[in-house]
Amino acid sequence: MLLVTKRLHFSASHRLHNAELSDQENKDIYGKCNNPNGHGHNYILEVTVAGKEDPKTGMVIDLKLLKEIIQKTLIDQVDHSHLNLDVSFLKNKIPTTEVLAKEFWKLLEKKIKTGKLYEIKIFESQNNVVIYRGGGK
Amino acid sequence: MLLVTKRLHFSASHRLHNAELSDQENKDIYGKCNNPNGHGHNYILEVTVAGKEDPKTGMVIDLKLLKEIIQKTLIDQVDHSHLNLDVSFLKNKIPTTEVLAKEFWKLLEKKIKTGKLYEIKIFESQNNVVIYRGGGK
Amino acid sequence: MLLVTKRLHFSASHRLHNAELSDQENKDIYGKCNNPNGHGHNYILEVTVAGKEDPKTGMVIDLKLLKEIIQKTLIDQVDHSHLNLDVSFLKNKIPTTEVLAKEFWKLLEKKIKTGKLYEIKIFESQNNVVIYRGGGK
Amino acid sequence: MLLVTKRLHFSASHRLHNAELSDQENKDIYGKCNNPNGHGHNYILEVTVAGKEDPKTGMVIDLKLLKEIIQKTLIDQVDHSHLNLDVSFLKNKIPTTEVLAKEFWKLLEKKIKTGKLYEIKIFESQNNVVIYRGGGK
Amino acid sequence: MLLVTKRLHFSASHRLHNAELSDQENKDIYGKCNNPNGHGHNYILEVTVAGKEDPKTGMVIDLKLLKEIIQKTLIDQVDHSHLNLDVSFLKNKIPTTEVLAKEFWKLLEKKIKTGKLYEIKIFESQNNVVIYRGGGK
Amino acid sequence: MLLVTKRLHFSASHRLHNAELSDQENKDIYGKCNNPNGHGHNYILEVTVAGKEDPKTGMVIDLKLLKEIIQKTLIDQVDHSHLNLDVSFLKNKIPTTEVLAKEFWKLLEKKIKTGKLYEIKIFESQNNVVIYRGGGK
Repeated sequence: MLLVTKRLHFSASHRLHNAELSDQENKDIYGKCNNPNGHGHNYILEVTVAGKEDPKTGMVIDLKLLKEIIQKTLIDQVDHSHLNLDVSFLKNKIPTTEVLAKEFWKLLEKKIKTGKLYEIKIFESQNNVVIYRGGGK
Repeated sequence: MLLVTKRLHFSASHRLHNAELSDQENKDIYGKCNNPNGHGHNYILEVTVAGKEDPKTGMVIDLKLLKEIIQKTLIDQVDHSHLNLDVSFLKNKIPTTEVLAKEFWKLLEKKIKTGKLYEIKIFESQNNVVIYRGGGK
Repeated sequence: MLLVTKRLHFSASHRLHNAELSDQENKDIYGKCNNPNGHGHNYILEVTVAGKEDPKTGMVIDLKLLKEIIQKTLIDQVDHSHLNLDVSFLKNKIPTTEVLAKEFWKLLEKKIKTGKLYEIKIFESQNNVVIYRGGGK
Repeated sequence: MLLVTKRLHFSASHRLHNAELSDQENKDIYGKCNNPNGHGHNYILEVTVAGKEDPKTGMVIDLKLLKEIIQKTLIDQVDHSHLNLDVSFLKNKIPTTEVLAKEFWKLLEKKIKTGKLYEIKIFESQNNVVIYRGGGK
Repeated sequence: MLLVTKRLHFSASHRLHNAELSDQENKDIYGKCNNPNGHGHNYILEVTVAGKEDPKTGMVIDLKLLKEIIQKTLIDQVDHSHLNLDVSFLKNKIPTTEVLAKEFWKLLEKKIKTGKLYEIKIFESQNNVVIYRGGGK
Repeated sequence: MLLVTKRLHFSASHRLHNAELSDQENKDIYGKCNNPNGHGHNYILEVTVAGKEDPKTGMVIDLKLLKEIIQKTLIDQVDHSHLNLDVSFLKNKIPTTEVLAKEFWKLLEKKIKTGKLYEIKIFESQNNVVIYRGGGK
């Protein structure tokens, strides 16, 4: 088992709000995270790819290439954005870190052609972290 | 010279925008930070107080007290907020980190009664940091 | 596989000492960690819960709730304590990080009712870390 | 102004307690930090020396030498100790971080013979920090 | 599952270059990392051992012993070295972090006699990380 | 006093060696850092500019601009290089962090036209840091 991880950052705002619930229910569930004008984070995104090292290059996947893929597929969509309002693949979704991780996986998985996407890890803050390794629904 | 520092966090969104300039000028100056729906950060705030240690307690200022003052005066106003829209002392101001630091100073300085406020340091991100030590206009 | 992690801190002192061994044996095994008056650490505790995200909330488990459970079950018992002398569930145990992780698991597992406790990770220091994922004896 | 800083760690326990005050007063002032059995921290110590670089070596002070001086003068006394009970130069003192910084300065200043001791910075935790630059009483 | 991790650092330079490829091919693959005079990193090495805690000591493996083994087997060979030119077990290999992790595993696995080597994790930088857990070829 | 800091990274190798001294003297002074083939670091560079905030922008200096200046003036010269062999402004100099900081200052000072260069801080590693604030010779 050989894994390589690339770490990137993005800054975004979001609001946790389920449009199918009442305002009071939303407030009860999300507390301060339901603030109508939103709030924000410096997210850290770690993408891990599993594979074997290519004997020609000594690499599982070129990390410069992996960075470009993540940048174009994910960071360019979410950096300096409001996740609820500006990001097409999050429209009508509740942008919790769990949902982010799963949506990121869907977009990224098909773009990784050397090795295989193994894990998406997102730090919403130093103290709140989500990992998704695919599977489930 | 004896200095004690308390470090706290807050998460907020903001938009860099000067209402007296045209949209194009704002875009030219602030780039992605001018995104109409805003974006966000996990800010780190470090407040430093200068003084002598009280021989009775061995402390310049009780850091639990200092934390409470910062919490009530600043963090409760800005955490999980949109700085442009939710924070009364930032209304009609451009919420750059420089402006934040100076406004925080004004509010905090008069609340510190043991020792003297020496420095406000704000990390907008790991790579962008502002320090204010009072004075100027 | 969807995992959410909450990170908290506690400060405690401890002494590594096995009462069934001689003083010399204890010194040989634990070295400086056997100092009779103890020494201390800023421990970092990371608790990871596995589950599916609830479609109503977009969350595996509400991290505010998880934090409260960890706080009440573990942090309130060990923070600002001497692990050997002040903590009932560690009485007559050797408070290595391995033992801490397993005892924390026992207490926490039954309190997690949304999702399932997946991992307890404790940093005794930046350089010494223990992970426990249940099972064994 | 050219400054070089060496960073080291030590792990210690302590109890904040002023023997000249009543138990109740101590509890009121120090709260959990007054726990009779003590608690502990992974302290980070940063020592800064000011000087000019020696044209022969390109260094203000050899950092290997500075490390040895700090190790012998300070770390060997306080690491894996109980600050109140095991450290001769802290006997009858209240081991707050402020007091530590000033006592460290007294011991270290005379040992630095290349350049001049400029600052002692101690992180009791990531969020509580003290700086001492000499002077005062 | 009980895992203990020891973290150490080493500073080294390297050049990514495959002697069987042309200069142009090397440049195309490795870019700046192919600079003939090399460049360098502060590597962080995390070694994880899996096992049960010994009831006599409360430890899976004594971390002081694990540190000594890693120091002698790995760090002493690679610290303050040029990986391509100074390290016998890397001769004629391309010193990518993937290759480092696998070579480290080979050397370390047989030296761990308490518990079992579980994982080698190397941070080439904060943003580029490799994990190896044995197996494969 | 209002200060803004931009933080960037570069990876480089170097050898501490004074050509005017004998091999033995070099070895005595620099120890492992004198290894003929060099070794390397992930340097962190923090550049601090002092000024007033422009009322039009709320900024002392646009951090995107400051980043570009540092990138072009310094990082592009030293990143992925061997400091002794590849960097023209370090030719015939001993590339200690002290010397780096002073040479960086000389190059950068004249490029900062908004505000005034206040400090250059370089982390050679987490534990070895140099600050230069101009002046001296």
